[in-house]
Amino acid sequence: MVRLCKDYIRPFVGEDELNNIAPMVSAAFNLLHERSGPGADYLGWIDLPVNFDRDELERIKSTAGKIRSMCDVFVIIGIGGSYLGSRAVIEFIKSEMYNRLGDSPEIYFAGNNISPVAMANILRLCRGRRVCINVISKSGTTTEPAIAFRVFRELLEETWGEEGARERIFVTTDRNEGNLRKFAEQKGYTTFTIPADIGGRYSVLSPVGLLPIAVAGLDIDELIAGAAQARLAFSDPDPAKNDSLCYAALRNILYRKGRVTEILVVYEQYMQMLCEWYKQLFGESEGKDGKGIYPSSVIYTTDLHSLGQYIQDGMRNQFETVLWVKEPDVDLAIPDDPGNIDGLGFLSGRSLAYVNQMAMKGTLLAHVDGGVPNLVIEIDKRDERSLGGLIYFFELACGVSGYLLGVNPFDQPGVEKYKKNMFALLGKPGFESRKKELEGRIR
Amino acid sequence: MVRLCKDYIRPFVGEDELNNIAPMVSAAFNLLHERSGPGADYLGWIDLPVNFDRDELERIKSTAGKIRSMCDVFVIIGIGGSYLGSRAVIEFIKSEMYNRLGDSPEIYFAGNNISPVAMANILRLCRGRRVCINVISKSGTTTEPAIAFRVFRELLEETWGEEGARERIFVTTDRNEGNLRKFAEQKGYTTFTIPADIGGRYSVLSPVGLLPIAVAGLDIDELIAGAAQARLAFSDPDPAKNDSLCYAALRNILYRKGRVTEILVVYEQYMQMLCEWYKQLFGESEGKDGKGIYPSSVIYTTDLHSLGQYIQDGMRNQFETVLWVKEPDVDLAIPDDPGNIDGLGFLSGRSLAYVNQMAMKGTLLAHVDGGVPNLVIEIDKRDERSLGGLIYFFELACGVSGYLLGVNPFDQPGVEKYKKNMFALLGKPGFESRKKELEGRIR
Repeated sequence: MVRLCKDYIRPFVGEDELNNIAPMVSAAFNLLHERSGPGADYLGWIDLPVNFDRDELERIKSTAGKIRSMCDVFVIIGIGGSYLGSRAVIEFIKSEMYNRLGDSPEIYFAGNNISPVAMANILRLCRGRRVCINVISKSGTTTEPAIAFRVFRELLEETWGEEGARERIFVTTDRNEGNLRKFAEQKGYTTFTIPADIGGRYSVLSPVGLLPIAVAGLDIDELIAGAAQARLAFSDPDPAKNDSLCYAALRNILYRKGRVTEILVVYEQYMQMLCEWYKQLFGESEGKDGKGIYPSSVIYTTDLHSLGQYIQDGMRNQFETVLWVKEPDVDLAIPDDPGNIDGLGFLSGRSLAYVNQMAMKGTLLAHVDGGVPNLVIEIDKRDERSLGGLIYFFELACGVSGYLLGVNPFDQPGVEKYKKNMFALLGKPGFESRKKELEGRIR
Repeated sequence: MVRLCKDYIRPFVGEDELNNIAPMVSAAFNLLHERSGPGADYLGWIDLPVNFDRDELERIKSTAGKIRSMCDVFVIIGIGGSYLGSRAVIEFIKSEMYNRLGDSPEIYFAGNNISPVAMANILRLCRGRRVCINVISKSGTTTEPAIAFRVFRELLEETWGEEGARERIFVTTDRNEGNLRKFAEQKGYTTFTIPADIGGRYSVLSPVGLLPIAVAGLDIDELIAGAAQARLAFSDPDPAKNDSLCYAALRNILYRKGRVTEILVVYEQYMQMLCEWYKQLFGESEGKDGKGIYPSSVIYTTDLHSLGQYIQDGMRNQFETVLWVKEPDVDLAIPDDPGNIDGLGFLSGRSLAYVNQMAMKGTLLAHVDGGVPNLVIEIDKRDERSLGGLIYFFELACGVSGYLLGVNPFDQPGVEKYKKNMFALLGKPGFESRKKELEGRIR
């Protein structure tokens, strides 16, 4: 299960502070469970691990098997929550080099940017190969995935014809609403559902995340089972008995002391996309109304030789949350160096995983001594079940933390603002006066 | 050349503020050029683009050519400044998918972490292939690269024998000092020099960066020429006539108003490692004595659907610096969608690069309206010359910015602290009492 270690916030947060805030934490938790707080229309994630469409899950598994056998390259088209969750899970389990190391199909993520370089690269990797795509969008009108869908639909139709393309296009969208739903039915594409009561950043355990994760060959039953286990384990409204709530409480206590940036610390490159998922989850949920903890991340020991200096000795407005997997699944012994040219003779024959762990512990103490509160979140294994639990732990903590902060954790009004400006500058009909105004302000 | 656009800090910084700080900026610049400030032993980078060992440069080019022909996989062993610069340059020019897309050799970076997973992945990719390595370390005793050097030396010696390994190991280290220098000469490895007066984070244009960059097939003459051009272009001590100094001035003005986090904004995945290089450069130079701007980064429009909400509407303690390449080198037209299912009919046939640019401009205005000061740094092209100029622009700005802040921008005392703890916990001889103390503090 997921555990929170709070030994290393002792010099910064007193036990009484946790007690003092506990009633408000319980109130926030109750707001969630009673569906009575702001954003209550988007709480489908709370019971999702036990309350999902079982037929659809089976259909995801069988479709994933079919996709695995029928293509060399699987392109996932989606932005934000429509790709971060699945990418985080795939890289966590298979490592960030999965396309280099793994069995087929290769998996690429498109439609999460407007870069012609990124698009051209993926198109080059698709050339002459059997391609399937999964387009993931609630409405079908979000610019980035919509453009990519045009490009890849054209590619598939030109290569395989209308009928061949139909077999290679998989659509994850709203059950009833939206242009993409209409279009998919008209074309006869295989479709999966984005639950109406789950927002993008909370959607990894819905078909949004599950189809790509299954295509990567991972065990989605285990992922869901881990989340269901966490749902039970973190069901007590008392933060003293609920590590997820305790984490939410501590981040708010630290924030109110001026610790306005949280640095998620990992020691493995394969967790980088999990950090990106966490950034969206917390940043988009809490960053509003002029408030919010800024979510940042580092990969140690790599970044101990980069941002490490700042975190050790710089401005004291941050705290770190270390994410740690207890049991290493890969290890190797450090070879001997008879000449001891590196002066590390005491490491000969030692386990690399053990050295990494001692680096983690040493860093933790060094940063605490440097004035940085450190939380540690630990899971047992690098497997689907543990990761499912961790995902639920973070989702719950985020909802409670947002309510504690006093915001609606389930909306994202700020995301519209760049879109409106972009549409205006691009001459979208209806935006004429805004276009004129904006053009007067840019050179 | 590199240009700074300051149109979008107008609502936040008055023209008089820039005038008021100008004499201090000039003083900081003069400290650098007169070599009279703290850390003056590490100012070799200032004249490096015109004052380098030309024989060594030719030797780097010929060796790189040899390496390109003799291996399938080139492994660069180094941490911090010993790999971030070269990786940033290689990915900027060739894109982050270079191993997937490019000609051989494939290039991997090892020895920048203690992860057994990362090490095992690279070893798997080396299996049965012709491998060359470049180990980059001033002393040869830094834990991460030292362990990796043991592993890869063993691999090469087991596969190719002592003599074969000798031909495949390339060492970049101090000219005279250190265990690695001694060992390399004893073994007869080909060596290159880390200049004694250049710190790791300033070393990309020295042999540290140049050999890997040349092995990747890039034009290192052009890279150096761009830096030399920037050295001349940014030689005026008056920030009103020197965009690099003006950037240093503005970040310090913003910092003093409580803008304690700088977010480097890019619109291309291929710039991610450049962001990481920037984080080390500024974070390690400025994050000390309880001070410093925290360097962070985002990739738009991707992260507009992640951290975008926070940056638009969250706590107002940040500023953004947008990095933009003026002339796109790759482009494609957005296909038509006759049914206009995505509602983006007005984009049919438009250039993707143009849409990306309008997203940039729209975002800039949206974030300024949201209360976030925005700076824009623009270079002309995605090529070696422009990038060389940008590197020099940032290096100079960083030195001046650090002096303005009142720190020694060229040391990194905090980096030692985790190492000492790690050594103690691992039982390094001489650390016995520290080991006991630390073990009493961890569970």
